[in-house]
Amino acid sequence: MATAVDKYFELVDQHQKEFIETLREVVAIPSVSSDASRRGEVVRMGEWLQARWEALGATCKRVDPGKQDLHGVELDLPPVILGQYGNDANKKTVLVYGHYDVQPALLEDGWDTDPFTLVETADGRLVGRGSTDDKGPVLGWLLCAETHKQAGLEFPVNLKFCFEGMEESGSEGLDDIIVAEADKWFKGTDVVCISDNYWLGTSKPCLTHGLRGVSYFHLQVEGPGADLHSGVFGGTVHEPMVDLVHLLSTLVDPNGRIKVPGIYDQVMAETEEEERSYEGLEFSHKALSGDLKRDVIIHSDERTTLKHRWRFPTLSIHGVEGAFYAPGDKTVIPARVRGKFSLRTVPNMEPARVAELVTNYLNAEFAKLGSKNVMKVIETHGGRWWYSSPNHPNFVAAARATERVYGVTPDLTREGGSIPVTLTFEENLRVNVLLLPMGAADDGAHSINEKIDKRNYIQGIKLLGAYLHEIAVTDLTA
Amino acid sequence: MATAVDKYFELVDQHQKEFIETLREVVAIPSVSSDASRRGEVVRMGEWLQARWEALGATCKRVDPGKQDLHGVELDLPPVILGQYGNDANKKTVLVYGHYDVQPALLEDGWDTDPFTLVETADGRLVGRGSTDDKGPVLGWLLCAETHKQAGLEFPVNLKFCFEGMEESGSEGLDDIIVAEADKWFKGTDVVCISDNYWLGTSKPCLTHGLRGVSYFHLQVEGPGADLHSGVFGGTVHEPMVDLVHLLSTLVDPNGRIKVPGIYDQVMAETEEEERSYEGLEFSHKALSGDLKRDVIIHSDERTTLKHRWRFPTLSIHGVEGAFYAPGDKTVIPARVRGKFSLRTVPNMEPARVAELVTNYLNAEFAKLGSKNVMKVIETHGGRWWYSSPNHPNFVAAARATERVYGVTPDLTREGGSIPVTLTFEENLRVNVLLLPMGAADDGAHSINEKIDKRNYIQGIKLLGAYLHEIAVTDLTA
Repeated sequence: MATAVDKYFELVDQHQKEFIETLREVVAIPSVSSDASRRGEVVRMGEWLQARWEALGATCKRVDPGKQDLHGVELDLPPVILGQYGNDANKKTVLVYGHYDVQPALLEDGWDTDPFTLVETADGRLVGRGSTDDKGPVLGWLLCAETHKQAGLEFPVNLKFCFEGMEESGSEGLDDIIVAEADKWFKGTDVVCISDNYWLGTSKPCLTHGLRGVSYFHLQVEGPGADLHSGVFGGTVHEPMVDLVHLLSTLVDPNGRIKVPGIYDQVMAETEEEERSYEGLEFSHKALSGDLKRDVIIHSDERTTLKHRWRFPTLSIHGVEGAFYAPGDKTVIPARVRGKFSLRTVPNMEPARVAELVTNYLNAEFAKLGSKNVMKVIETHGGRWWYSSPNHPNFVAAARATERVYGVTPDLTREGGSIPVTLTFEENLRVNVLLLPMGAADDGAHSINEKIDKRNYIQGIKLLGAYLHEIAVTDLTA
Repeated sequence: MATAVDKYFELVDQHQKEFIETLREVVAIPSVSSDASRRGEVVRMGEWLQARWEALGATCKRVDPGKQDLHGVELDLPPVILGQYGNDANKKTVLVYGHYDVQPALLEDGWDTDPFTLVETADGRLVGRGSTDDKGPVLGWLLCAETHKQAGLEFPVNLKFCFEGMEESGSEGLDDIIVAEADKWFKGTDVVCISDNYWLGTSKPCLTHGLRGVSYFHLQVEGPGADLHSGVFGGTVHEPMVDLVHLLSTLVDPNGRIKVPGIYDQVMAETEEEERSYEGLEFSHKALSGDLKRDVIIHSDERTTLKHRWRFPTLSIHGVEGAFYAPGDKTVIPARVRGKFSLRTVPNMEPARVAELVTNYLNAEFAKLGSKNVMKVIETHGGRWWYSSPNHPNFVAAARATERVYGVTPDLTREGGSIPVTLTFEENLRVNVLLLPMGAADDGAHSINEKIDKRNYIQGIKLLGAYLHEIAVTDLTA
């Protein structure tokens, strides 16, 4: 094996310029999924991918998920490109997922250069929309396969892929396809690998084995039949907005501690092994404060901050619907208001139990207010967390690959947000899912001047290949 | 005097139909001050008034307050019509104020009939935009003078008037004119009378001797440099919105009690005389609940409700600027939010002291939170309350006039809102101001199907005349 991987690394180094040109070619396709006028470009990008894989000998299946209503415009959803590259019963089968659509980007948003023209800077950044999210990683799998074929190297696994064009717009239509194809196109998958997140810092690679879930709530307080004049009615009626701020203030304290009784009871206990995994993580409050532009960090040390991002539930208050929100002064008493808040959930919290605890608690707190208004708690979304053991052979293989490419043991990270497709694959294919990021924390995935460092791109192409080679020789049943 | 007033009443009764026709004529002029396309109609309405008074022999002065920027359209402000009718050194001089502009109205808002066509209903309502607010009362003064002249009745006072066309749009330009003319056009004014508010109920006339002031605040909490993703940052940074709901919840309890220490210390003590004035007021919780569509009334008895509308300060929370306010779900942590709240102030609260108490209190409460965010309290407006003794001869004269017309002692009321021009006249002319309403509580001044009852209109024309006759024989220095 050593020989094949070493040869592959050598080839990747030789083809760097060509790989950057390919990235330039795909960044130039403005596949913005949230912009109706760009829908043709999204489709073109999907077709580009399919054609290139087919030229290599892959079998592809284009699935069109149907129609979409985008702000009143009816559009065809862009295709999900399913593929199969190699079909050798003696090889393991790896399913990879990525997305070929991108966030919107306009020069006037503050980009230094045209967002759809890849620019290589003197300090080694490849700047352009989609460079890191997620065109770089999606190309990674393709370039890996092409490089093997061109050099006559045996491809180590059977590769299945699933590339969608709606990830930046809620992955509309994808879940149904995964469910429908779980025992068809995706049948035989041994492990899943997704490269669509980022390192914890900027210099040290990581493997990601957990994501938080999210439960979203509307807290509605309804009073009089119409908005009232505060001159006439202030102080004589129960104001929905007053009840609401009292209730919202009972949810979480200013240091982030959730006040809903029972919420922490469901949280997985900390283990010594987990405790050790925080050692040497590339993460500093100093860098974080810089990113935030103001030191508003609650916790005194980095480890505690990461625990509250990864392994503890948190509660955020997002806003109020129905009240006065514009600049200036208005003396209205709003008749009906909805506070919006969400909890990020962690192992082993159950969304239904979270909703029950939150609702019961708010009902009790509302009763204490003695208000004649009507209060209602509405759970609008309850998505589960995802957690995988970093000791699974899929992760062990990825760790060995990382060591070969970067010469370091990767950080083991979790993320505070959600990547719902991770859970969809795990639940429907019933195999292990690994998140293997290519880009760094400062890539600015959804911001202006999005970039991927040339180092991360080139080493990332090596990493994805090395990972497939490691999987080939790993006992996945261990 | 008895003879002259009786004769005047008789004439008003005889001319009812004609007076209703005149109201029809002015309702048909759609003088909507907030609608740029109607500005010509507003001016036409002012010119109609001026011409009619001049035909009667009044001296008028048209003051054009200058330009206005209405949502980007530059418009000439409609004229303020100043007038002088009679100039007899042996008579008292009464200044009356009214406005000839109206609220917007469209049939499709839900009106039963065209809003600018006066309709007399079988149950005695005169329905049309402006009928009660404020064209009916403005006509009242004119028709009174015309009736006297036509019948050869001596007009009992010198009348000055000030009619503006921007009241429904913030009285832009008016204050400067009052200040400038205080010792010129308005010189010699003995008392002021404004007929631009409403009875407390629907059957009993009233005199209004107090208005609350309003102090408006923005409570700003500023955290990170940009909005954050709650998945990544929830629970690890001090959230401005969490700080804000905690602070807002410390301002007022759900029963309307203001929690800012010292606020109630400035409130005028209750007197036995005041206590008596609540006896027999036409006001019921039952009717109020009906108007509100839900019983959300805090207090258990009517008197306490009125006290919290008229003579106690109240605090209302209007909304939040900078947070998520749209329907649906969004998981943002807003970086900077502004809570908006206002206090209605009463004798003898000083706006500057109110701002000081509120600011000091919020600073202390914010310090308790232990947040690293930055909090700032901004007072955006501090308008004073107005309070006049109902024993002033101006009120005594109005009470006698009311008894003559309606056969009852008028209720003595205050209002919870503000009519800023009241204070402007009092402070600049340094004379007593009386609010003498013509319409009833259910007239729907700013609503659909605005009306004035025929009874209120005709008796109101009598009332304004009787008031002037009473002033003529009242010792204002008593």
